[in-house]
Amino acid sequence: MNSYAPAIEKLIKAFARFPSVGEKTATRMASHVISASREEAAHLARCLLDVKDEIRFCSECFNLAQGDLCEVCKNKEQRDVTTICVVEDPDSLVSIEESAAYKGLYHVLHGAISPLDGIGPDNIRISELLQRVAKGGVSEIIIATNPTVAGEATALLITNLLGNNGVKISRLALGIPLGADIRYSDRMTIGKSLEFRRKV
Amino acid sequence: MNSYAPAIEKLIKAFARFPSVGEKTATRMASHVISASREEAAHLARCLLDVKDEIRFCSECFNLAQGDLCEVCKNKEQRDVTTICVVEDPDSLVSIEESAAYKGLYHVLHGAISPLDGIGPDNIRISELLQRVAKGGVSEIIIATNPTVAGEATALLITNLLGNNGVKISRLALGIPLGADIRYSDRMTIGKSLEFRRKV
Repeated sequence: MNSYAPAIEKLIKAFARFPSVGEKTATRMASHVISASREEAAHLARCLLDVKDEIRFCSECFNLAQGDLCEVCKNKEQRDVTTICVVEDPDSLVSIEESAAYKGLYHVLHGAISPLDGIGPDNIRISELLQRVAKGGVSEIIIATNPTVAGEATALLITNLLGNNGVKISRLALGIPLGADIRYSDRMTIGKSLEFRRKV
Repeated sequence: MNSYAPAIEKLIKAFARFPSVGEKTATRMASHVISASREEAAHLARCLLDVKDEIRFCSECFNLAQGDLCEVCKNKEQRDVTTICVVEDPDSLVSIEESAAYKGLYHVLHGAISPLDGIGPDNIRISELLQRVAKGGVSEIIIATNPTVAGEATALLITNLLGNNGVKISRLALGIPLGADIRYSDRMTIGKSLEFRRKV
């Protein structure tokens, strides 16, 4: 591996630290940088630093934000402010936004409770959610944590904490994804899709 | 997609310009940058600029080099300087180095002739190869261009140009790759492996 010049070697190693980027992909990315213009490389370098310097958490929903409020909270007059969708991470928020099926606000927990990993209710943004609900004006909380052990535990805890608050609490449906084949769906998913079935 | 803050959006777009990096991967990479330390992002930014500022072509073999000579040419006392392996690009050179089966020098053409793409003999480093051979001291040229139309055409041209130079010219063997199944190998590859067969 010492057939690369040191600067190239260092760049490959830096790329290989990304998730799901192995040495081959990192090498291909470094090759791209070598053949790209200096401006393009400088642009990427600038973007990297800008993200670190300008991105923080939205003061209302804890989504990633440039400035005080995130893109969703900035746009409140076009959103249904009585509904809050609770997600584990900013990427889940973006996926739900891309579905274009939701027009309410969000609350990003930044994790899910997982006692074995040392993540308790105080390590994620649950108390901030309770404060938002306590302020009033919220009629529905849609819990959109992941259908994993940690996500389900988090959903259950939030349901219990908000239970006697007069707020409607709902949960994203679990079921067979669009385009899937029931024959090849796992038993747990089929079980959930029966549990979440709807009268037509 | 306007659910991302502008700085994140820009970083995702910058990552998505890499080959074989789609929007999903670019988003995952941006998420990694967001959760990484500022030092890590600054390190990558620095590496990017260092590669652009410090990497140029080796003055002897046109491999990528930091300084005047590449890592192979710097190390000449440990190499067989009478053999030159001709490759299309620096990545091919690295792959051959990693095989640890070759100890000679290289010559990087930076392309292969392809008239339809407007790449003729003058657009790649063929004349520089002829000059190196003309200087003397070279006993064998191993042509390691890719087994494609352009690579084969380039190999043929180099063979013709160096034909009556008294230098031995050889070509990397084409055949069935290690671990492959002959049943599922394509006909052209099987044909080549017969052509390149060796007496045992």
